[in-house]
Amino acid sequence: MNDRFLRACRRQPVDRAPLWIMRQAGRYLPEYRELRARVDFLTLCRTPELAVEASLQPLQRFDLDASIIFSDILLPLEALGCELTFDPAPKIARPLKTVADIAALTPRPLAEVVPYVGESIALLRRELAGRVPVIGFCGAPFTLASYMVEGGGSKSFILIKRLMFEQPKLAHVLFEKLTRTLIPYLEMQVDAGARIVQIFDSWGGELSPHDFETFSLPYLQRMVSALKAKGVPVIVFGTAMSTHLPLLRRTGADVLGVDWRIEIDQARALAGPDVALQGNLDPLALFLPRAELEARVGDILRRAGPVGHIFNLGHGILPPTDPEAAKHLVEAVHRLGCHVTAPASP
Amino acid sequence: MNDRFLRACRRQPVDRAPLWIMRQAGRYLPEYRELRARVDFLTLCRTPELAVEASLQPLQRFDLDASIIFSDILLPLEALGCELTFDPAPKIARPLKTVADIAALTPRPLAEVVPYVGESIALLRRELAGRVPVIGFCGAPFTLASYMVEGGGSKSFILIKRLMFEQPKLAHVLFEKLTRTLIPYLEMQVDAGARIVQIFDSWGGELSPHDFETFSLPYLQRMVSALKAKGVPVIVFGTAMSTHLPLLRRTGADVLGVDWRIEIDQARALAGPDVALQGNLDPLALFLPRAELEARVGDILRRAGPVGHIFNLGHGILPPTDPEAAKHLVEAVHRLGCHVTAPASP
Repeated sequence: MNDRFLRACRRQPVDRAPLWIMRQAGRYLPEYRELRARVDFLTLCRTPELAVEASLQPLQRFDLDASIIFSDILLPLEALGCELTFDPAPKIARPLKTVADIAALTPRPLAEVVPYVGESIALLRRELAGRVPVIGFCGAPFTLASYMVEGGGSKSFILIKRLMFEQPKLAHVLFEKLTRTLIPYLEMQVDAGARIVQIFDSWGGELSPHDFETFSLPYLQRMVSALKAKGVPVIVFGTAMSTHLPLLRRTGADVLGVDWRIEIDQARALAGPDVALQGNLDPLALFLPRAELEARVGDILRRAGPVGHIFNLGHGILPPTDPEAAKHLVEAVHRLGCHVTAPASP
Repeated sequence: MNDRFLRACRRQPVDRAPLWIMRQAGRYLPEYRELRARVDFLTLCRTPELAVEASLQPLQRFDLDASIIFSDILLPLEALGCELTFDPAPKIARPLKTVADIAALTPRPLAEVVPYVGESIALLRRELAGRVPVIGFCGAPFTLASYMVEGGGSKSFILIKRLMFEQPKLAHVLFEKLTRTLIPYLEMQVDAGARIVQIFDSWGGELSPHDFETFSLPYLQRMVSALKAKGVPVIVFGTAMSTHLPLLRRTGADVLGVDWRIEIDQARALAGPDVALQGNLDPLALFLPRAELEARVGDILRRAGPVGHIFNLGHGILPPTDPEAAKHLVEAVHRLGCHVTAPASP
């Protein structure tokens, strides 16, 4: 078993920086586009054999240190009665508008609604046969609530913030229901074989520090604590939220995701020494000439240091990216992330 | 003349924190919506009497410390041959795609293309009769180039970043042409009567520190330096760019805009003591109950301190905002931003 990723999450010495790529199973791969030409996105997510096929595609090309299960953060919302479509942007059929809408959200058993997620992870783990660990994931309550209230993506997050500011108790009811759905959802993924979990608070950076502390942090803390009790490292990720790093360390997460808007050594200064960091190459850097891409990889590795760093992009790889560039990235991390002399002590 | 704003820009003592509201002339005001029912957005911008009417509307309701000329950052792009439409999101008719497209951009005399901006400012200044200073503004080269290359707004800024990463020399040609257009554009606004200028690098926060330093900072430095030579304070504003504050201080700007994603005392620590700060209330805070809005205003004023702070939102006021909430904001800043005991020495 390649345990480089797990060791880095725990800030133990590693022979080289572990590496995975957010959205590594995705549209930049021709074999993924071929798969998608045959089935729609939701069918792909809901069919374990196909989800595993998509999850494995990048591993067949690149020597990555983890496999993330192919899925979407919005799927568990179906357990709360949400109807989803992807076209390709996600849409929620009836955005939450009233007290009654939120009161009516009654969590149904996950095993009935999203059984395929556990089945996919179990199958993926068998297929990987110990090659690399499986990452399970979910969205954070604030981020998922944003989709449920806005009905999809948003620019100014006006509806979810109005809910929080005008009816804070009701907002907390929604976050509470989500937390109670998401903890067993992640536990199910761990029981099925996920060795690491990542929580995407993709829009947490839209909040002021005060609002992040009030409306997102308490729920993240509970989720992290429940998952750590299951023995797996937890990664908390968001974008444009580096100014929240001092708050994010209070989540108790083993690893904090960092986007490219900050140098990773500055992120380290804000996060403190007792947490691992994941990141932080701009996904667009994959369009740089190879030598410059390598220089940026080297810079990140130097700034991050040899302990407690998982190399990744600062956000998902973009569909127009050339898979060859991803290959160069992987090779560069392998070569430049090598810690020839392992640190003397953990 | 109310010179509170100018004094705060220069970190001189003031009786209370000066205040304006980004997009204070805009759709949240019923009288603005009435004006827009009669004329389209571009006609409004291009007709000095109407632009001045819109600029003055918020001043008739609220005791603000500055008037910003009603206009749009994209208008000077017409001097480079761009065709603009607003529906209501801005669109560029033929986004730049090739070397030839960028080579073909030949700056035309601003006095021919956007004479109405200077006329509007001169008329606004006369109408204000010294009540408050006029703010002139423009976009930053990187931000305007994003619109020109993406053709409008963008999510991942893939086209402008590909230009920068794949053809950096060509990107610099574009930024250079923009800088040479924007400096005289701002100078024209100062000559017409603007007493302060604000440069909107709205999307600068999408760049890594390295890329911001390479592709935006040098042009901002030249613009700031040229405008300071005209004797006016310069504000540089962007969102999600607090991690760039140590770079932004190198622009030489008198004032740096701060959004709500960071506490303003933390922003002060990053920006250093020798620059004023503007901000930083979340525009959505205007939907809070009045007492909580006031608590947030008080918190920002305390964290910012009495010297070198201009109160503002961290981004533009949103159309669904109740004008009464804006009134409460203004009253709260007047009451809580009062420095009863002026600092002993400047």
